[in-house]
Amino acid sequence: MTQLGIVKRNIVRADKAAVDSLAGFGVATIHEAMGRLGLMKPYMRPIYTGAHLCGTAVTVLLHPGDNWMMHVVAEQLQAGDVVVAAVTSENADGFFGDLLATSFRARGAVGLVIDGGVRDIKDLTSMQFPVFSKAVHAKGTIKATLGSVNIAVVCAGAQVNPGDVVIADDDGVVVVPAALAQQVADAAAAREANETEKRAKLAAGVLGLDMYNMRPALEKAGLKYVD
Amino acid sequence: MTQLGIVKRNIVRADKAAVDSLAGFGVATIHEAMGRLGLMKPYMRPIYTGAHLCGTAVTVLLHPGDNWMMHVVAEQLQAGDVVVAAVTSENADGFFGDLLATSFRARGAVGLVIDGGVRDIKDLTSMQFPVFSKAVHAKGTIKATLGSVNIAVVCAGAQVNPGDVVIADDDGVVVVPAALAQQVADAAAAREANETEKRAKLAAGVLGLDMYNMRPALEKAGLKYVD
Amino acid sequence: MTQLGIVKRNIVRADKAAVDSLAGFGVATIHEAMGRLGLMKPYMRPIYTGAHLCGTAVTVLLHPGDNWMMHVVAEQLQAGDVVVAAVTSENADGFFGDLLATSFRARGAVGLVIDGGVRDIKDLTSMQFPVFSKAVHAKGTIKATLGSVNIAVVCAGAQVNPGDVVIADDDGVVVVPAALAQQVADAAAAREANETEKRAKLAAGVLGLDMYNMRPALEKAGLKYVD
Amino acid sequence: MTQLGIVKRNIVRADKAAVDSLAGFGVATIHEAMGRLGLMKPYMRPIYTGAHLCGTAVTVLLHPGDNWMMHVVAEQLQAGDVVVAAVTSENADGFFGDLLATSFRARGAVGLVIDGGVRDIKDLTSMQFPVFSKAVHAKGTIKATLGSVNIAVVCAGAQVNPGDVVIADDDGVVVVPAALAQQVADAAAAREANETEKRAKLAAGVLGLDMYNMRPALEKAGLKYVD
Amino acid sequence: MTQLGIVKRNIVRADKAAVDSLAGFGVATIHEAMGRLGLMKPYMRPIYTGAHLCGTAVTVLLHPGDNWMMHVVAEQLQAGDVVVAAVTSENADGFFGDLLATSFRARGAVGLVIDGGVRDIKDLTSMQFPVFSKAVHAKGTIKATLGSVNIAVVCAGAQVNPGDVVIADDDGVVVVPAALAQQVADAAAAREANETEKRAKLAAGVLGLDMYNMRPALEKAGLKYVD
Amino acid sequence: MTQLGIVKRNIVRADKAAVDSLAGFGVATIHEAMGRLGLMKPYMRPIYTGAHLCGTAVTVLLHPGDNWMMHVVAEQLQAGDVVVAAVTSENADGFFGDLLATSFRARGAVGLVIDGGVRDIKDLTSMQFPVFSKAVHAKGTIKATLGSVNIAVVCAGAQVNPGDVVIADDDGVVVVPAALAQQVADAAAAREANETEKRAKLAAGVLGLDMYNMRPALEKAGLKYVD
Repeated sequence: MTQLGIVKRNIVRADKAAVDSLAGFGVATIHEAMGRLGLMKPYMRPIYTGAHLCGTAVTVLLHPGDNWMMHVVAEQLQAGDVVVAAVTSENADGFFGDLLATSFRARGAVGLVIDGGVRDIKDLTSMQFPVFSKAVHAKGTIKATLGSVNIAVVCAGAQVNPGDVVIADDDGVVVVPAALAQQVADAAAAREANETEKRAKLAAGVLGLDMYNMRPALEKAGLKYVD
Repeated sequence: MTQLGIVKRNIVRADKAAVDSLAGFGVATIHEAMGRLGLMKPYMRPIYTGAHLCGTAVTVLLHPGDNWMMHVVAEQLQAGDVVVAAVTSENADGFFGDLLATSFRARGAVGLVIDGGVRDIKDLTSMQFPVFSKAVHAKGTIKATLGSVNIAVVCAGAQVNPGDVVIADDDGVVVVPAALAQQVADAAAAREANETEKRAKLAAGVLGLDMYNMRPALEKAGLKYVD
Repeated sequence: MTQLGIVKRNIVRADKAAVDSLAGFGVATIHEAMGRLGLMKPYMRPIYTGAHLCGTAVTVLLHPGDNWMMHVVAEQLQAGDVVVAAVTSENADGFFGDLLATSFRARGAVGLVIDGGVRDIKDLTSMQFPVFSKAVHAKGTIKATLGSVNIAVVCAGAQVNPGDVVIADDDGVVVVPAALAQQVADAAAAREANETEKRAKLAAGVLGLDMYNMRPALEKAGLKYVD
Repeated sequence: MTQLGIVKRNIVRADKAAVDSLAGFGVATIHEAMGRLGLMKPYMRPIYTGAHLCGTAVTVLLHPGDNWMMHVVAEQLQAGDVVVAAVTSENADGFFGDLLATSFRARGAVGLVIDGGVRDIKDLTSMQFPVFSKAVHAKGTIKATLGSVNIAVVCAGAQVNPGDVVIADDDGVVVVPAALAQQVADAAAAREANETEKRAKLAAGVLGLDMYNMRPALEKAGLKYVD
Repeated sequence: MTQLGIVKRNIVRADKAAVDSLAGFGVATIHEAMGRLGLMKPYMRPIYTGAHLCGTAVTVLLHPGDNWMMHVVAEQLQAGDVVVAAVTSENADGFFGDLLATSFRARGAVGLVIDGGVRDIKDLTSMQFPVFSKAVHAKGTIKATLGSVNIAVVCAGAQVNPGDVVIADDDGVVVVPAALAQQVADAAAAREANETEKRAKLAAGVLGLDMYNMRPALEKAGLKYVD
Repeated sequence: MTQLGIVKRNIVRADKAAVDSLAGFGVATIHEAMGRLGLMKPYMRPIYTGAHLCGTAVTVLLHPGDNWMMHVVAEQLQAGDVVVAAVTSENADGFFGDLLATSFRARGAVGLVIDGGVRDIKDLTSMQFPVFSKAVHAKGTIKATLGSVNIAVVCAGAQVNPGDVVIADDDGVVVVPAALAQQVADAAAAREANETEKRAKLAAGVLGLDMYNMRPALEKAGLKYVD
């Protein structure tokens, strides 16, 4: 009945070209392009300023205080993958450090998103290995309990399926279902083109009130100007 | 009965010279000079290291998940203003990003203080547009509900009236009532002059115990030295 | 009955050579070398990126909103000491700033670990005076109540005795009992030597599954691979 | 410049009849009747189930860990008053217990709202003395620092002026400006009358969709029903 | 691309008999019987002591500060349903009160699980309408934005599909996939039968060490008894 | 070097008569009598209203998500003991439920204090088995890792040695070192006698300002009364 103790080897990763397209956009833009869904909670922060990643999710479900499955997941990685690690209950232990980063990178991974803690921040920063986590914590973990690899997980409030596209930058982490990757990339491109023009107008002093024609709606809603 | 849906156009801003004087001091010094009042809660943090601002408050009251009034407030900005945004209940959505920053700057604003979330951190950092916020969050907002502009608000635990001076740096955010601006600037100057001398003594190894003549009071309070 | 109002002048500091040995290792390595004990809670963060310290603990117990004992502790400092400040209840006031840092440094201290708030972040960063704290807060404190110096304290969840070695870096803060300092340094050295070899293997693509011979145990635990 | 160390003796309390009218309504109703303003943050909770209060605010500003001013405020109490206690920084110490409750009640107070901690919960419950607080904590406080009495304070995110009406029940704490008391009571009465009829319809199975005629607006907004 | 603005009318509810079987077990037992999956986060608490519910999930996705969809979901309720409400970002506003409870009950619902706030606690308690929520908050909401009904949602960290069984009691909230309902009920029954015998042994003074035959494993792991 | 994997069988428990004396006082009184030391953090709450306990500490150090040592500690219990459970990192899993409570009670324990989660709240309440915990959580734990029994631990911020007296009630949890038990009990008795008289005076309307002769000190500190 349980999904614990299972490693799914064959997953359908999002189309490479679509992933590459998404890599060109920021998290806020993609989140908007997708209809404002798919964001992780804002407690997920980069371990160094400027960290960013875009890749296909390989998921792992861990137990509190136990990183055994991090070694199991390493074997399932392909070039361009992002490890997305969920934990069965809230725990900020340091599940990941520079040795695992070395291994993940050697296997092709481009980063880690973990709803838990990480350590060896100085080394990970030197390596420029991007990690988005709930916490930084030197606390080590054991290797005693089976979790699963490549099952659907909830990570920091977002549903992640293996193969989904995960994009993370200074604004947070967003998940794009594999099947929607190109469609979202196209919508993001449209949105961004549109923003360049808006930015120029606003920089010239045009008000959003006028650019978006908000005044009639505000007046209808009852906005009153007083002196 | 309510103050929702009101935009006050004419506010009395603190004296320009006094604001300029305050700009020369740090938040901790100003907070001390004002008698240890006016600080916002410590969860208000700069979005990039070294961000700092000093200006006159233009206030806006937002609803959770709704940044409509951010466009309304833009029209009320003058050179040297700081937008102070409060929210009617706790919410970390991304009410503000690089487009609004472009607009605010074009209208003369020198920064934003918001008891909510912001996004486009990378762009805001490139622009060196200082923002002090409760959170960073890519989550977008809607434009559906009226709040108010230039009413008295409580932002991160501090009362802010339109026209007050707001100063923010790595130590936090402090609010100086407009009427007290010059007086506080003078007190801050006196305090800082005083600190230079103290710093030199302490650097030379003089103890605060002696410099502040604390030993008699400590003895009277019952402090005991044991071996 | 109480330990309040006491300053212990003579404490046994950890052996200088052992402290110097420990200074060469990161917090995560030392925590592992010590059997995964002695860590402070992960909310203790450096006030600037890259801050690190290693020294002998001189402890102080403060009251909320009161930093009087910070001046008392200054007199007890020797070269190589780290001030470890606990508070009798949770409080994020700014107990410490650049003046006290100047004094502490003049007396030989190499840093501060405080389960409370600090201020003057810009100056402390310029001074490169390492501080690990629960919060940054401009809020000032009074000087009215006696605490104690060089008693055993609980700081951020860790027991600290005067003279213990305290090491802090981007990964957190760890406390090594004075009597174990050299033993832990030796274990850390052994561990680190060991890691260099592991890192090379992992970088070459060897899996932890094989390097640590985990496959039999995983199979025995019931791990199933599916397609 | 500071408002610390001041006790204002003469304050204008809200009209007694208006206070009595407000006492008949719940916090949620009053908050709605006032245009959804004036609520304290939801971390303010009653110390026992069913605690409720309605009275005129006598305010006090405390320092962390110091309840000296609680004795000063006692002298300013009149029949029907509620003490509203703010703290200059976040602190959960036990500022209040059964002795102060005995004193406050003897002076006519009907309860306490405090953005801090309280203790002696068992006794306060036996006394049925209603308290709404941020925390319960046995930690005692000192009597060393001056705060103020009957100045405007920010308590749990809400601005409170002396003489305002404070109403608290299981849903939270709301503050009604003295000048609006009767007007809000009238609006609350109208709202409640209106709710009785609505409740009967909903109990009979009528949908809010129909009772409030929401279907056209939902359709216009684009709501789609699928099978 | 988005799932916002959709109401799914036909969902497959878990088998009634299986739901009734599950109603006989506590949350902790069911969570164990399901292999320790499906739990919501522990911040979800009952609004009154002893609240409990078991029913089939009808899901709704809300926006912060907006409860419009609560009226839409009411129409989709059948006897035995539990409304499971997720919010697109963290928000503790009072999305639900006694009027909606009256409506939900009239439509057959047996309770509410909401990752947000509720109000009218006194009335909901009188009605004995069980609610499990993140917060209690008198703050009202608007009716302006479309969410969705009967889509898959993440609520308090747990994935919930329409038709799943939701069980909640003093220990928390657990979600059982509809297809597994009977299987989990059977496993729970087996587990509980087993516990009666264990309880009797333990009550008689038998140690778990012996009852579960833990001594050999503990010894093998290296446990040492010292005097 | 580590203290993990050790069970100390012989501990010196506080004197029975002193424990019995302490049982007559509340936590706030004992905390005051001991000089305001020894309190746990205020997040430690009783699982049911009115829970209280007083006994001698038998300590256990657990790992996150692992309650194996709870069975080991059961064997070390004697009549009148309280189990004090610390965890090596923050974790709210349900380490304890009605089966362990049955076992602990059969061995003579009078309650549990745990810096983690518990479950089976309904049963524990029926049993009237007092538990003070950080959380309630149905989440189960594994039995895989060695901790220790009867070593010194830090639990919720307080140092606890085996044999210390632990007292808990609605106000929180306090720890009295075994050697000080009778002395603290005597001080508590003196304090309480003193309070009866004070309470009567305050109930009669005497102000604390006069009863404690605070007016001269307040005046000296600069308190100003204004109209």
